Amino acid sequence: MRSAFYISDGTAITSEVFGHATLSLFPVEFKHITIPFVETEQKAYEVKLQIDKAFKQSGEKPLVFFTFVEPQLSDIILSSEGQCFDFLTAYSGQVKNTIGVEPVPRTHRTHSIHEKSYDFRIDAVNYALANDDGSNLKDYDVADIILVGVSRSGKTPTSLYLALQYGIKAANYPLTEDDLDMMRLPNALQNHKKKLFGLTINPERLAAIRNERMANSKYASLRQCRLEVREAEMLYKKHKIPHLSSTHFSVEEISAKILAETGLERRKY
Amino acid sequence: MRSAFYISDGTAITSEVFGHATLSLFPVEFKHITIPFVETEQKAYEVKLQIDKAFKQSGEKPLVFFTFVEPQLSDIILSSEGQCFDFLTAYSGQVKNTIGVEPVPRTHRTHSIHEKSYDFRIDAVNYALANDDGSNLKDYDVADIILVGVSRSGKTPTSLYLALQYGIKAANYPLTEDDLDMMRLPNALQNHKKKLFGLTINPERLAAIRNERMANSKYASLRQCRLEVREAEMLYKKHKIPHLSSTHFSVEEISAKILAETGLERRKY
Repeated sequence: MRSAFYISDGTAITSEVFGHATLSLFPVEFKHITIPFVETEQKAYEVKLQIDKAFKQSGEKPLVFFTFVEPQLSDIILSSEGQCFDFLTAYSGQVKNTIGVEPVPRTHRTHSIHEKSYDFRIDAVNYALANDDGSNLKDYDVADIILVGVSRSGKTPTSLYLALQYGIKAANYPLTEDDLDMMRLPNALQNHKKKLFGLTINPERLAAIRNERMANSKYASLRQCRLEVREAEMLYKKHKIPHLSSTHFSVEEISAKILAETGLERRKY
Repeated sequence: MRSAFYISDGTAITSEVFGHATLSLFPVEFKHITIPFVETEQKAYEVKLQIDKAFKQSGEKPLVFFTFVEPQLSDIILSSEGQCFDFLTAYSGQVKNTIGVEPVPRTHRTHSIHEKSYDFRIDAVNYALANDDGSNLKDYDVADIILVGVSRSGKTPTSLYLALQYGIKAANYPLTEDDLDMMRLPNALQNHKKKLFGLTINPERLAAIRNERMANSKYASLRQCRLEVREAEMLYKKHKIPHLSSTHFSVEEISAKILAETGLERRKY
């Protein structure tokens, strides 16, 4: 199998995201190898040997996606048997021509603790954990958004993703049978209507998810799931709460849709 | 201020990561605008108008990082006044030449619920939450890794990041004063020594973090933090537990270092 290397003097996350997106266009399986924190010439030579070895073993040129600040390190990787993609360098030249400003490469530009938004993000993670599943009702004043929905409709992973990726403080509140039966907003949410965003889900999918947790319970029965989902959707309509269905979407997609629909400002780019 | 647009028929996460990494090379502030799920020609025309308006207002050509599967949508964006970077298309040609396989573009290739690893990742998030802070000691058999460390050394955000990004099941366990005083591994961890990974932290930084939570407490005092950190590091050495300091690193960096050091296999690329 052909190898794909993702290499950087930092986390190599940028190399991975870019390389993975490029390779996902091809109906081919690759052996993925990430090598982060290649910060010395010695380490770069070791990586070069590893690339050459992968070539020798498979007979197929490895694909190598890499970013370095130091040109000496790039040169060592470029001297390998891999097909090398120094993708940031290529585009930084084009950006430079457009904006008329020279690039000033620094290591650990992205994904590091020095990003302005870093403390926000960690605060937001702590906030999401402390305000998960209606466990705390006192701190909704500082929420950026409050996700509502029936149990297991995707609120918790979405809250965590919004926090970790975007520094958005997302609380989440489970709609219980009492709330749904009365078709009213829970007291804790009355003063925060503008922050509410509803999640809904296909009842069959919900029943499958709940069955993994509590097999053959009333909670997991299709009848119960249908009832709760129907009532939750009616509640959203009655109170004009924006909402979307999580059934066919990943947390990344749900989060991107929420941001696009609410216009919520993220703290990290 | 010059605008930077990140546009896609999917989440636009790839455009954001790539564009952000490229722009971070320049000592210039940009106005960032992400527009995900541009799936129709009408929507693409609206985006083109938005790009043209940004140009008109600032007099500076917006930078536009985009990925589309449908060439008609790309063409509409390319007809805008922006400086457009269709970065995946450029590189997919080079990859094609190397591997001799035609690309087969599909929408929602990445960051979607259809990725093989998606269910793993959500399972791992649920696992991290259920096994946070020593709250559950029965399910360490299925852990991929168990992070240990004193309170507030970065265990929880790291566990969540490992789960959400890589589908790795990470439990975490807080080293308490009793454990540290006896310089022994807690009972719950005895049978899982190979899964342990220690986090440590600079005592001054730890005191600052703890003071935000409980100002002027013994828990947050520099004396207490120094004591706990010294003992935790001694414990790691005594029991040969691999460890690293979280002081100067983001969760992304800590996670990348843990993967590199342990060789732990991620479930998502």
